[in-house]
Amino acid sequence: MPVYINDQFTDNEKATLHVSDLSIQRGFAVFDFCRTVNGVPLFLNDHLERFLHSAHAMRLQVPYTKPQLIDIIRELVQRSGIADAGIRIMLTGGYSADSYHPAKPNLVITCNAVRSTTQADFDKGLSAITYEYQRELAHIKSINYLMAVWLQPMLRVQQADDVIYFNKQSITEFPRSNVFIVTAAGKLITPAHNILQGITRKKILSLADGIIEVEERDISVEELQQASEIFTTSTTKKVLPVVKLNGKAVNDGRPGNISKRQ
Amino acid sequence: MPVYINDQFTDNEKATLHVSDLSIQRGFAVFDFCRTVNGVPLFLNDHLERFLHSAHAMRLQVPYTKPQLIDIIRELVQRSGIADAGIRIMLTGGYSADSYHPAKPNLVITCNAVRSTTQADFDKGLSAITYEYQRELAHIKSINYLMAVWLQPMLRVQQADDVIYFNKQSITEFPRSNVFIVTAAGKLITPAHNILQGITRKKILSLADGIIEVEERDISVEELQQASEIFTTSTTKKVLPVVKLNGKAVNDGRPGNISKRQ
Repeated sequence: MPVYINDQFTDNEKATLHVSDLSIQRGFAVFDFCRTVNGVPLFLNDHLERFLHSAHAMRLQVPYTKPQLIDIIRELVQRSGIADAGIRIMLTGGYSADSYHPAKPNLVITCNAVRSTTQADFDKGLSAITYEYQRELAHIKSINYLMAVWLQPMLRVQQADDVIYFNKQSITEFPRSNVFIVTAAGKLITPAHNILQGITRKKILSLADGIIEVEERDISVEELQQASEIFTTSTTKKVLPVVKLNGKAVNDGRPGNISKRQ
Repeated sequence: MPVYINDQFTDNEKATLHVSDLSIQRGFAVFDFCRTVNGVPLFLNDHLERFLHSAHAMRLQVPYTKPQLIDIIRELVQRSGIADAGIRIMLTGGYSADSYHPAKPNLVITCNAVRSTTQADFDKGLSAITYEYQRELAHIKSINYLMAVWLQPMLRVQQADDVIYFNKQSITEFPRSNVFIVTAAGKLITPAHNILQGITRKKILSLADGIIEVEERDISVEELQQASEIFTTSTTKKVLPVVKLNGKAVNDGRPGNISKRQ
């Protein structure tokens, strides 16, 4: 599989970074992730806009313009020959001289086969638990998933698929996806603060507009527990219902009607 | 400069990791750092004990025993030919198949020239500011320095050298070192919770025992601001006085008597 690093395409086995890179030394890098359907990247402009925002907020200079990145990504997808791929665009703090201060960023773009939510996954739904944690610099899509990866063994023990973070009693997001609830009164609500602005989240809000009453605001853990429906949204998860929360069934353990309408 | 990766010594320019490594993908790795004096690693046993603790807490299996690691480090130091070196021992989440779940860890040990605090640095002291932030999994020496690196431009604007984090009004630590205060009553106090257990911190506490009254407990930001002396401790900083805090002089802007006694 080809990988694009800095200014050239290279074979996957040669896709390496020197250990002085600030991603390896200090976890300092940003990225974005989109997928292709039949070789066409979905919402590429949205993903690149967010990538540029993340890089700018981390004071990392992107070595290409958006049109140049689009050209590189299109060629990478074509070279890969994968119809349904996940594209990861990453920009690191570069080869730091002192292991601490950023240098010239390294750009890495990969394209690999990706599995996204199927109808069977949707029907089965997710089991989620809540956990208190706040990702720092939440508006930036950084590579810091330390807590998320660290929590995996606990999830296995609790027979849960994923975790919903909360901060001071307000829920925020899953480690890699956003969260929505539907209230008993039929309102669609999603957290507004301390989250990453998901592209799928934005599309859902846009689709829901005029069909159902929508609010973007803080949601307490208690309100989450009383929700009629809960679902999560992301590039690979699309819309995926949460059918169990902290061990208790949500909507009798089945995907709800609003979740199904997407 | 030689680098040890997994099971062999390699030249520095060949010291690379594949981009699928979980340090690059998700900032998932632990490390420790010690220095040598005239080619002899200082407090190596303490550093390796903490490294093994960090790896264990992150469920990463260390591929060597402590005696084997000591042998590798000694040989690396010898091959480097550097008298006063910084040794970085890192263990990553490995080459992950799905960019999320840990695989067989990659071990990377580097040995480079390092600059540690001089008498001139000590006399000049540090200018520090306080900032609200809590490192997740604080007892683990992970590679997550996202906030610390991100804050560098703000420090430059404020003409500060470093930052003291606080969490819910209690100070915790600097990004890469511990903090001590001396009260007007002459007590030496250092935070007890939500910190990394520094090796130099431990040595200072041990040295101070019987000479000065010592407390390990929460310190409020207000108490920090009223301290007679503030200093920070780390492997490279050793003991370094803070002579300015949030723009105000500490102890008339000069290193204090207790700081000087180390």
